[in-house]
Amino acid sequence: MNNRQIILASRPVGIPQPEHFELVEADAPGLKDGEFLVENHYLSVDPAQRGYVNDENNYAPPVPIGAVMRAMTVGKVIASKAAAVKTGEYYYGWFGWQDYCAATPATILRKVDPDQAPLSTGAGLLGINGLTAYLALHDIGQPKPGETVLVTAAAGAVGSIVGQLAKQAGARPVAVVGSDEKGEQCVADYGYAAYVNYKQPLEAELREACPKGVDVFFDNTSGEIADTVYGQVAMFGRVIQCGTMSIASWVPTPMGPRKDREILTRRLRVQGFVIFDHAARYDATAAELAAMLADGRLRYAEDIGDNIADAPQALVDVYAGRNRGKKLIRLR
Amino acid sequence: MNNRQIILASRPVGIPQPEHFELVEADAPGLKDGEFLVENHYLSVDPAQRGYVNDENNYAPPVPIGAVMRAMTVGKVIASKAAAVKTGEYYYGWFGWQDYCAATPATILRKVDPDQAPLSTGAGLLGINGLTAYLALHDIGQPKPGETVLVTAAAGAVGSIVGQLAKQAGARPVAVVGSDEKGEQCVADYGYAAYVNYKQPLEAELREACPKGVDVFFDNTSGEIADTVYGQVAMFGRVIQCGTMSIASWVPTPMGPRKDREILTRRLRVQGFVIFDHAARYDATAAELAAMLADGRLRYAEDIGDNIADAPQALVDVYAGRNRGKKLIRLR
Repeated sequence: MNNRQIILASRPVGIPQPEHFELVEADAPGLKDGEFLVENHYLSVDPAQRGYVNDENNYAPPVPIGAVMRAMTVGKVIASKAAAVKTGEYYYGWFGWQDYCAATPATILRKVDPDQAPLSTGAGLLGINGLTAYLALHDIGQPKPGETVLVTAAAGAVGSIVGQLAKQAGARPVAVVGSDEKGEQCVADYGYAAYVNYKQPLEAELREACPKGVDVFFDNTSGEIADTVYGQVAMFGRVIQCGTMSIASWVPTPMGPRKDREILTRRLRVQGFVIFDHAARYDATAAELAAMLADGRLRYAEDIGDNIADAPQALVDVYAGRNRGKKLIRLR
Repeated sequence: MNNRQIILASRPVGIPQPEHFELVEADAPGLKDGEFLVENHYLSVDPAQRGYVNDENNYAPPVPIGAVMRAMTVGKVIASKAAAVKTGEYYYGWFGWQDYCAATPATILRKVDPDQAPLSTGAGLLGINGLTAYLALHDIGQPKPGETVLVTAAAGAVGSIVGQLAKQAGARPVAVVGSDEKGEQCVADYGYAAYVNYKQPLEAELREACPKGVDVFFDNTSGEIADTVYGQVAMFGRVIQCGTMSIASWVPTPMGPRKDREILTRRLRVQGFVIFDHAARYDATAAELAAMLADGRLRYAEDIGDNIADAPQALVDVYAGRNRGKKLIRLR
C-alpha cells in the first residue's frame, strides 16, 4: 500500500509555512510486535502544531527534520500485533499527517466509538478541542450564573464550543473575533450573547459588550488583544491561558505591558491549560459532550478538505483565521 | 491633648518622598456617637502605602491631599462612644500616622490581646505581614514537602515569615535578597536553605540555588527579578503575586517580557493576593502564629524608630530595602 506522508523539511521560526513541509510517498510500514497499523480517516489541523516544529519552549520536543509531521488523527485499525488493540477498532491518536501509521498503544489518545457521534467529531468536538473547551472552562474558569465569559478566537474549534458551554452554565459569553461575519455566526450558532471585532477600537467595544467587566477570560490568542482585555477583567477574575495564537514567534520573547499590578490589585487567577494533563477524564467528558450533541444542546462546525497535500496550507489558514469551524483533512 | 499628624501634602508619582508629607499639630479630636478615641502606640510602615497615595490602579481610592496618611497602627482605646469598643482595649486598625484618632468600628482590622504576644507584633507578625505570609503561602502556594519555594524581599516583614512557614511545611525555601548580609540573616534566622543576591548574575545563581526549579514563587517585587525567576519556575508551579515593590510607577504601564507562553506550556497558576479579602480568618491565623511564636517555632525582627516625623523617610527606606525587619514607629 502506498503511504503519502507530509514530512518536516526544514525548521521554521514562527508559524510554519508550506515550504517547510514536503509530501513524500513510501510503502505502508510493516508491524513489529506490540504495534498496530492505523489507516487514517481524518487528519487534524491544530494551532498547537506550530509548537511541535519550533525550536522553542514547549511541552514536547520538536519534530525532527525529515520526520512525519506530528498530528492527531482519527483512524481505523487494519492490522494489529498489539494485544489490547483489535482490527476494525477506531482510535484518535498521534498517528501523523500520513495515510498509514505503525503505532504503539502509547500514542492513543482515545478509543473512538463511531456509533457515539460522526467519526470526524473524534478529532474535534470529542477530541482535544471539545475536551479543552469543557475542562478548561469548568476547571479554571468556573463560570457562575450571570458572569461574563470573554473568549478569543471565539469562532474557532475551541471557542465555538466554549460559548455554548458557558451559556449552559448560565453565564454570558462574549466573543472576540476578527470579522463581523464570524461574530454573527458566534451569536447565531455558538451561544454568544454579543461579539466584539478586534479590528475595531477594542477597548471601547469591550466596555460596551462587557459593561460589568470580564469575570472569565478564555484566552486563545495572547498579545495585544489580551493586553486590552486585562484592563477590563473584573475583581477576582479568572484567566485561562489556553493558547497564544496571535504571537508569531517566542524567540526572542516579545515584550508587552506588565500585568502584575492588575493581577495583584484585582486578585486575578491566571492559569495555563494543556489538555494532555487530563487523559483520565477524556472518556467521561467526551461522553457528556456526545450526549449534548445527540439531544441538540451542542452544535459544531467543520471545515473539511480532502487533499493531504493541502494540510500545511490549512495550518497557515488556521493561524490567519480563515477556517470556518474545526479544520480537518479527510483521507477516506 | 496635642495630636501630631503626618498629612499628605502633595500627590507623588511613584514612591512617595518626605517632601510629599508634612508634620502638623492639632488638638486631639472629639468623639461623635459611635466613635472611639485611639491613642496610637505603634505606627506601621508598609510598602503597600505607596499605593494609598498614588493616583493609580489600586484596591482603594487614594488618600486626599491634606488628609492624615492612611496607615495601620496598634493603639489603645482611651475613650469610647461605640457600643462594642471599651476603654482600655487594644486594636489594630486604620488609625493613621498620628497620635490620636477618632475611629469607627469599621476601621478596626483586629482586636489585639496584649497578653498573646508583645504589643508591637500586632502590627507585624500578627498583623498584615504575618497573616499575608501564612494565608498567601498556604492558600495559593500550597507547598508540598520537598518543593522549592522562592521568595523575593525575603528579609522583609512578609518574606522573613514565609521562609519559616515554608520550612515548617517541609519545603525548601530560597531567599532572593539585595545583599549578602541579608541573605545570611535569612539562612541563619528565617529558615531559608539558601539565598541568591539579585545584584549578582541572577539566572546562574538561581539555577544553582534551585536545581529542580521553583515550585512556588512568592513574589513581592515584580520587575526584572521576577522576569528571570519565571524562566525557572517548574511545571505546575504556583506564583503568588503579593507585591510589586521593584516597580517605581505603573503610569504608564511598564513593559516586560510576555509570560503567557511560560504560563501555558508549564501550566503555571499565577494569583494575586490581598490580605483584606480574608478578614474572617485573621483571628484564627493570628492565634496560630502567636502559638508558634510562644513555643519558639517562629522568629521575627523589628526595626523600630521613635519619632513620628521620621515616618515618611522610613517608607522610602523600606522601598530601598534599608530596614532590618518590620518597620514601626513607636509613639509611647
